[in-house]
Amino acid sequence: MSERGKLIVICGPSGAGKSTVISRVMQTDPSIVFSVSATTRAPREGERDGVNYFFVSHPKFQSMIHNGELLEHAEYVGNCYGTPKAPVLDSIEKGKSVVFDIEVQGAAQIKARCPEAILIFIVPSDFSQIEKRLRGRGTDSEEKIQGRLEQARRECARAKNYDYVVLNDDPDRAAEEIRSIILAEKCKMANRKHYLNTEVSVS
Amino acid sequence: MSERGKLIVICGPSGAGKSTVISRVMQTDPSIVFSVSATTRAPREGERDGVNYFFVSHPKFQSMIHNGELLEHAEYVGNCYGTPKAPVLDSIEKGKSVVFDIEVQGAAQIKARCPEAILIFIVPSDFSQIEKRLRGRGTDSEEKIQGRLEQARRECARAKNYDYVVLNDDPDRAAEEIRSIILAEKCKMANRKHYLNTEVSVS
Repeated sequence: MSERGKLIVICGPSGAGKSTVISRVMQTDPSIVFSVSATTRAPREGERDGVNYFFVSHPKFQSMIHNGELLEHAEYVGNCYGTPKAPVLDSIEKGKSVVFDIEVQGAAQIKARCPEAILIFIVPSDFSQIEKRLRGRGTDSEEKIQGRLEQARRECARAKNYDYVVLNDDPDRAAEEIRSIILAEKCKMANRKHYLNTEVSVS
Repeated sequence: MSERGKLIVICGPSGAGKSTVISRVMQTDPSIVFSVSATTRAPREGERDGVNYFFVSHPKFQSMIHNGELLEHAEYVGNCYGTPKAPVLDSIEKGKSVVFDIEVQGAAQIKARCPEAILIFIVPSDFSQIEKRLRGRGTDSEEKIQGRLEQARRECARAKNYDYVVLNDDPDRAAEEIRSIILAEKCKMANRKHYLNTEVSVS
């Protein structure tokens, strides 16, 4: 199969169950790979370089930005995170689709640099499930929960320019929706016009 | 699931293996139904009214055209064929997607009346397979084969405005592509914007 892979950017509010859905997608389709980010933060126990993250120094990260080696980058709590371009483009050329689990700002950066990227927004079928999940964790104060809910509302409001909405009322069903989106995108006329060329093969 | 079904128009040149692929789609997904055409031709042995076709008289067919009850219609060898609108719209409202196996002219009529219809063109991954299949049947003269190939070339050339191209190098893989297209179309932002509305459900 010589078809190019797709860039799949997956966003969604905290509490939408995004990471579970993404891991189900990976488990069931070997032609879909996960984008490994570069970060300046120290590895946590069990984290492996090149698997969980590419662990790099601050000067190295700055030079990656400077040399245009990152598709997107952002800073959180004093650490830098970014998506190295080369492994992504390499995977796509080999026909692998690459999934990004990133924040909405990073998603906007990727869409700006790679207009062909497909933006998927994951939501629970009922928004009240987000509140339920956040409360279910039992770790956050009421103030923190209200803050996260407010952020989730803002993210949903800004997601109207995304290409697809995936419902996570069930992680397996949501994973099937994502796999279907990737396959359907490959079937689009723009990607397969050459199959309508009847001149070459008819003797 | 309150989501509306989709109108899926499937075309493709003779010899592309279309009917096999469509029957695989039906077998594996009960939410996808086949559109039953009306015809003025007499039932063949084993054909049942309302299952294979709606068998109607010529005057009845003319009145269906006159009353706007058909989504598309055409005449072949003195018999009229057409797609009754009511059962299609009824299925869609119930969340069933309706698949049409029709000629390119009928497809154009449906797209004109229902712009939301999704047009899929089925081709073998290599056009020379069409020739192989036509010859493999062993029933047609060389002249007839050349005529069919010429028609297949014309149909392919006109298919560039279709939405998707499905490759039938393997009927099961092709059926999976069609199911994925239907599911992905349901996930499009235009159909799911209401899920981003966070006002209703947060207390």
